[in-house]
Amino acid sequence: MHLLAIGGSDGGISAALRARELDPAADVTVMLADAYPNFSICGIPYHVSGDVPDWHDLAHRSRDDLQALGIRLLTDTTARRIDVAAHQVTATDAGGRELAVDYDRLVVATGAVPVRPPVAGLDRLGPADGVHLLHTMGDTHQVMATLASRRPERAVVVGAGYIGLEMAEALTARGIAVTVLEALPHVLPTLDGPLGDLVAGELAGHGVDVRTATSVTEVGTDGSRLAVRATPTTAGGGLGAPLELQAELVLVVTGVTPDTALARSAGLPVTPEGAVRVDRHMATDLPDVYAAGDCVLTHHQLLGETYLPLGTTAHKQGRIAGENALGGQRRFEGSLGTQVVKVFDLVAARTGIRDDQAAPAGFEPRTVASVADDHKAYYPGATTVHVRTTGDLATGRLLGVQMVGTIASAVHKRVDTAATAIHAGLTVDQLNDLDLSYTPPLGSPWDVLQAAAQRWTAETRTPSAPAPAATTTTD
Amino acid sequence: MHLLAIGGSDGGISAALRARELDPAADVTVMLADAYPNFSICGIPYHVSGDVPDWHDLAHRSRDDLQALGIRLLTDTTARRIDVAAHQVTATDAGGRELAVDYDRLVVATGAVPVRPPVAGLDRLGPADGVHLLHTMGDTHQVMATLASRRPERAVVVGAGYIGLEMAEALTARGIAVTVLEALPHVLPTLDGPLGDLVAGELAGHGVDVRTATSVTEVGTDGSRLAVRATPTTAGGGLGAPLELQAELVLVVTGVTPDTALARSAGLPVTPEGAVRVDRHMATDLPDVYAAGDCVLTHHQLLGETYLPLGTTAHKQGRIAGENALGGQRRFEGSLGTQVVKVFDLVAARTGIRDDQAAPAGFEPRTVASVADDHKAYYPGATTVHVRTTGDLATGRLLGVQMVGTIASAVHKRVDTAATAIHAGLTVDQLNDLDLSYTPPLGSPWDVLQAAAQRWTAETRTPSAPAPAATTTTD
Repeated sequence: MHLLAIGGSDGGISAALRARELDPAADVTVMLADAYPNFSICGIPYHVSGDVPDWHDLAHRSRDDLQALGIRLLTDTTARRIDVAAHQVTATDAGGRELAVDYDRLVVATGAVPVRPPVAGLDRLGPADGVHLLHTMGDTHQVMATLASRRPERAVVVGAGYIGLEMAEALTARGIAVTVLEALPHVLPTLDGPLGDLVAGELAGHGVDVRTATSVTEVGTDGSRLAVRATPTTAGGGLGAPLELQAELVLVVTGVTPDTALARSAGLPVTPEGAVRVDRHMATDLPDVYAAGDCVLTHHQLLGETYLPLGTTAHKQGRIAGENALGGQRRFEGSLGTQVVKVFDLVAARTGIRDDQAAPAGFEPRTVASVADDHKAYYPGATTVHVRTTGDLATGRLLGVQMVGTIASAVHKRVDTAATAIHAGLTVDQLNDLDLSYTPPLGSPWDVLQAAAQRWTAETRTPSAPAPAATTTTD
Repeated sequence: MHLLAIGGSDGGISAALRARELDPAADVTVMLADAYPNFSICGIPYHVSGDVPDWHDLAHRSRDDLQALGIRLLTDTTARRIDVAAHQVTATDAGGRELAVDYDRLVVATGAVPVRPPVAGLDRLGPADGVHLLHTMGDTHQVMATLASRRPERAVVVGAGYIGLEMAEALTARGIAVTVLEALPHVLPTLDGPLGDLVAGELAGHGVDVRTATSVTEVGTDGSRLAVRATPTTAGGGLGAPLELQAELVLVVTGVTPDTALARSAGLPVTPEGAVRVDRHMATDLPDVYAAGDCVLTHHQLLGETYLPLGTTAHKQGRIAGENALGGQRRFEGSLGTQVVKVFDLVAARTGIRDDQAAPAGFEPRTVASVADDHKAYYPGATTVHVRTTGDLATGRLLGVQMVGTIASAVHKRVDTAATAIHAGLTVDQLNDLDLSYTPPLGSPWDVLQAAAQRWTAETRTPSAPAPAATTTTD
């Protein structure tokens, strides 16, 4: 049995590890186009910030670790063709030499590539000019080279998603003046606006210049500098006065798209957006070919099939693909889009879906905002947790929870309780039945999530049982 | 409709609040024997430590808050008799005057009283001598008076449960040299020994003298000081050399027992231990009488009926009693014994059951220890979380999780994810399906709980599918 995984990041490596774990006799190979197997891509901002001085430390496991686990690595080896009938992958190595690798089972885990938005100038400017996309360790090395060679005083980050904000913090930590440009009205567009605005305030409080509702139109050069031109959208929906920003570094982080040219050429069915279609067992339509990670269409527990590239999901899908490639029957139980990001001293987390996702999916969503102290106010250091709870008015089912709080408020793990409750199909009201932990320095007798549930229930009560004045029983 | 609650702590106040919330027209009275309605008893150690200088701040709500919510308070009023047929409670007020209060629905929430262990001397020594039990605000004031008057340099805490350890920390914070005596072999006997030992190490590291397997035999006086005599048990089970400790303060915190003399006298059925029997709707066997909190027998999701006094449970039960007293049909879904305690810089948390509880309940338990970093090791500040995972070998069901980690490791909320998973009836292996949050500064792609689940699964694998060498797929 020879399992071949194409892709050296979360999906491919997880498949390989699981296969070796379940069958130490299995022959397992991972083929990857670069030299960085099993690197923690999510850790890149912390190398740039200086928190992780040596980039080698970003590896979940070293090459030696992987080989000691019995995994054969073909690094700097780019898969070119999959011959499904012959069970063979043709590739080229670093020297351009062609090689063929036979397999019994294949896991396609080619990941994603960054989106290059349709902005004038991005077609001709690149790392040598201080203009970077950021997705791989190779990209990271190029950013670090720009930091060393150009010693930028000012940087523009295009895109205020998770990576954009982490990079804004990282560059600020290096003493660089950062402007973040976001076309949408709020930062962290995967959170509701009021929570995004809290995060924007945190950025501003640390000196980051945040411009939302501002679309980049052009990136050009201005002598030795870069010039970024952008146009704000006014509150009325019109266009504001164009602005031009000078910088020595421009980072474009506006999302990713599946990297599936290879899969398509092999005849694997893909969605219009290019994601490989897999079943709940991570099997593709072609025999002995599985796929996992950022290159596939992901099953979402509340939305059905969707494209939702996340490292945690890639780990799970890869593990399942590796297990099933060896004859297992493990099913991927689905994502909830759980995400968390640290932005300076705040943490923003979410799980499940929001109104704008829930309504098209057939739910009757209602989102209720609430705030609660992370622990009893009498104990020193209590801070406010901001919660938005989304439930289905038709069934009462919990659909989603979003939270913003300080690092110490543990919103990253509070949201996990919500994720588990959604996974279990609980109603919002049933959150009150959960036996959650309490001690005054770390919580309240009714947890933040339960206080939020009580507020949701009070605000959504039907007119026949009107909600009283602000008399919740939350402590 | 007049709802009367007897008891001014979590159970009684929660019932009153819920009744007023659901029906602002309801007439609601809380009768309590002392002057401290709605105080956070769990916060007492933080007043003693000095973290909460003003004891008034320990109130979840002030007397004015409660009255503004439409709750009538009868403080310093001790209920003496319940006449169930007449729907009347007879009481005496602070001046010894008798009063009668009619009710339509009654909630008995008389709580618990501290156990006075059979130790020579405890029958004759009391607060005036520097010997204290600790359960109420009244007890707290007496402890504070002893601290002011005797200015103790040394204290002995008898009992290494949650309150004992919190008080050991509090007294240490005041500069007092503290010895903790525990008859059982480990501190925090509600955790498995290896985790209790970690907490004992934390105590010792902060200068607390911890003596486990040591039974107190006598508390006496030695001039102006107190003398505590105790006998260690040797590893072989024999008795070691008796020891005598001098101190100016002795705190006896060895658990509580239900305070149900009143309930018994009214004909309410109680268990041999004295806990009031209630159904899942918090109704007693007598008409229009509900009961909640530390005075009742509690439904445990895995163990059935058990005595398990906890503030969180009292809040839930009181809320349900208040709802059902007004005609509701809410069911108490059961406790999981979830508990957490902060001891200096460590946090110990548990939910569900351990081997010694599970086996008698008909499970085939197996507990597996594991450790994991609270977040990616490459990001600064990672610390180790110690986990013990208990599952049922027959069904794979998750039965319990215990964790010890630093405050920053958020074990208090990680254990909530486990509690929610147990509540939902998940197997240990199904923890791997949960979509939990991840960002390198705060977690790992496989959460600590999932790493623990993978270790449990690997160690309990049947011989037909042998566990491999240490090749887990946890990052």
